Amino acid sequence: MKLLYPTSLSLDPKLLEGFNASIHSYDVTKPIPEDLIDAECLITWCNSPSNLKDAASRCKKLKWIQALAAGPNDVLNAGFDPKTVTITTGSGLHDQTVAEHTLGMLLTAARKFHLMRDSQTQGKWPGNSGGPQPDKAPGTFTTLHEARILVWGFGNIAKTLTLYLRALGAEVKGVARHAGVRDGVQVYSEDQLPELLKETDALVMILPGSDSTKHALNAERLKVLPKHAWVVNVGRGTCIDEAALNSALDEGAIGGAALDVFEKEPLDESSPLYKQKNVILSPHAAGGRPRGAEGLIAENLRRFLAGQELKNVL
Amino acid sequence: MKLLYPTSLSLDPKLLEGFNASIHSYDVTKPIPEDLIDAECLITWCNSPSNLKDAASRCKKLKWIQALAAGPNDVLNAGFDPKTVTITTGSGLHDQTVAEHTLGMLLTAARKFHLMRDSQTQGKWPGNSGGPQPDKAPGTFTTLHEARILVWGFGNIAKTLTLYLRALGAEVKGVARHAGVRDGVQVYSEDQLPELLKETDALVMILPGSDSTKHALNAERLKVLPKHAWVVNVGRGTCIDEAALNSALDEGAIGGAALDVFEKEPLDESSPLYKQKNVILSPHAAGGRPRGAEGLIAENLRRFLAGQELKNVL
Repeated sequence: MKLLYPTSLSLDPKLLEGFNASIHSYDVTKPIPEDLIDAECLITWCNSPSNLKDAASRCKKLKWIQALAAGPNDVLNAGFDPKTVTITTGSGLHDQTVAEHTLGMLLTAARKFHLMRDSQTQGKWPGNSGGPQPDKAPGTFTTLHEARILVWGFGNIAKTLTLYLRALGAEVKGVARHAGVRDGVQVYSEDQLPELLKETDALVMILPGSDSTKHALNAERLKVLPKHAWVVNVGRGTCIDEAALNSALDEGAIGGAALDVFEKEPLDESSPLYKQKNVILSPHAAGGRPRGAEGLIAENLRRFLAGQELKNVL
Repeated sequence: MKLLYPTSLSLDPKLLEGFNASIHSYDVTKPIPEDLIDAECLITWCNSPSNLKDAASRCKKLKWIQALAAGPNDVLNAGFDPKTVTITTGSGLHDQTVAEHTLGMLLTAARKFHLMRDSQTQGKWPGNSGGPQPDKAPGTFTTLHEARILVWGFGNIAKTLTLYLRALGAEVKGVARHAGVRDGVQVYSEDQLPELLKETDALVMILPGSDSTKHALNAERLKVLPKHAWVVNVGRGTCIDEAALNSALDEGAIGGAALDVFEKEPLDESSPLYKQKNVILSPHAAGGRPRGAEGLIAENLRRFLAGQELKNVL
């Protein structure tokens, strides 16, 4: 039994030892070497499309692919036979990293670090962003303390983010397809959005990309947000109607937007979003650094060898 | 018994009712009105020097000044008679606000939001700051998870900051005049600095301004920090030798500096710090927004009326 792990990530192969399996590294940008095509398990991370297509046609003994991405569309589209190959995802490896980045975006927006940077770049003291001020004036988003944060798409990333936000004193609510209480957070169904958006200081979107989430945040819903509210998107760019968002910013209908994902990436340099003072632009940087990959691989390898159900089956 | 509260802050006077005292607002930029000069208690926040000097000479019945600043040098220097007037500080009102700002600075540095902003300003996709990357490569400061944070000046702000940092998975150590364990954090004495600085990813300085803390972080100590380490200062500007810091940045001897305070404020526009790519410049904005002032005033008013010892006596 051969397991192939990618060199596209700094994995510690020692943490995968101790099983009745031989483990081998491989280059995700080249065809799988001839002596490794009989592998039963392939770990993927940022593989080139040609590598995956080649593996799908040549690795005939493959039974299990462990993707390290949370949503491995690349693997799904490569042509592996779903009847013989089980695909498991990297769900859970990105919770902390994405939640940390999201917290950074929220704090940048609230404490105005982006505007301070603009002054600094111009060689000017950013006096407008400092000095004595009210702690939490009505109609402002200046702190996470008692800020009303609505997280749309309430999975594991949202749960981790909630821990950070509550440590800072924020009031967290969730929106998801199914209502209920998760990790102590009241999660509402999407038909409650009109009422919820009205009472939101920052809307955090962590929705997956799909036909059903396309332009989930549209002109109509943007209108419902308070004028000071910020929109943060660390899910998928297609979930926001970017043209409508830009209009809302132009009109001062919302406070600002911190965006890590875009309808098309990289965001075209002609996009008016670059010029928006209260847009914080981040280049799909929230995730992209799986944490604890070895632990997930080892656990799933153990299950695979024991003939047990794998974790994170797609 | 008259208590005077300032209009320089949005206080809710209803939260000060219920005592055998009359409460009155006053303008901190003008002389105290004639009908209020018999007040026994004065709450101060951002008073003009002339207002305080005038109050010191005319308010002869004054027994207690509740400053809302953590370090009320302005009140100390105004000429009140220390034999008859007790001064209490706003210590504790700024813990959360300063800690939140500090966390924002640390996340900006780690997740490179300042560099993303530079690209955005130039109309360029900040690709260098995003995409797949190692989670925590040796010799980098890219996340708070398992980051080694050394907090120099370990009082109440540090304790609050520690809660936030630990939620994000950071390893926190402290430095203070007295060693010991505080709120579960190992706090070392300053003679341990040479060893501690060596193993630091980010040094957070929350020292008060005084002769003994002047240039506490000097060229010699800067040299001991790892090349990737960041320096964050939310204490007092005088605690860092700015010229030495700038040289360290020029030489790439440290990773960067996030500064909320400066030797002279506003920082002169000729300062080379404005032009440092890895300086995050914030205009004394970490505090400046007392939180829970009414609670402290009411508690101290109760103690005052009961003849008990006040909280936060200077």
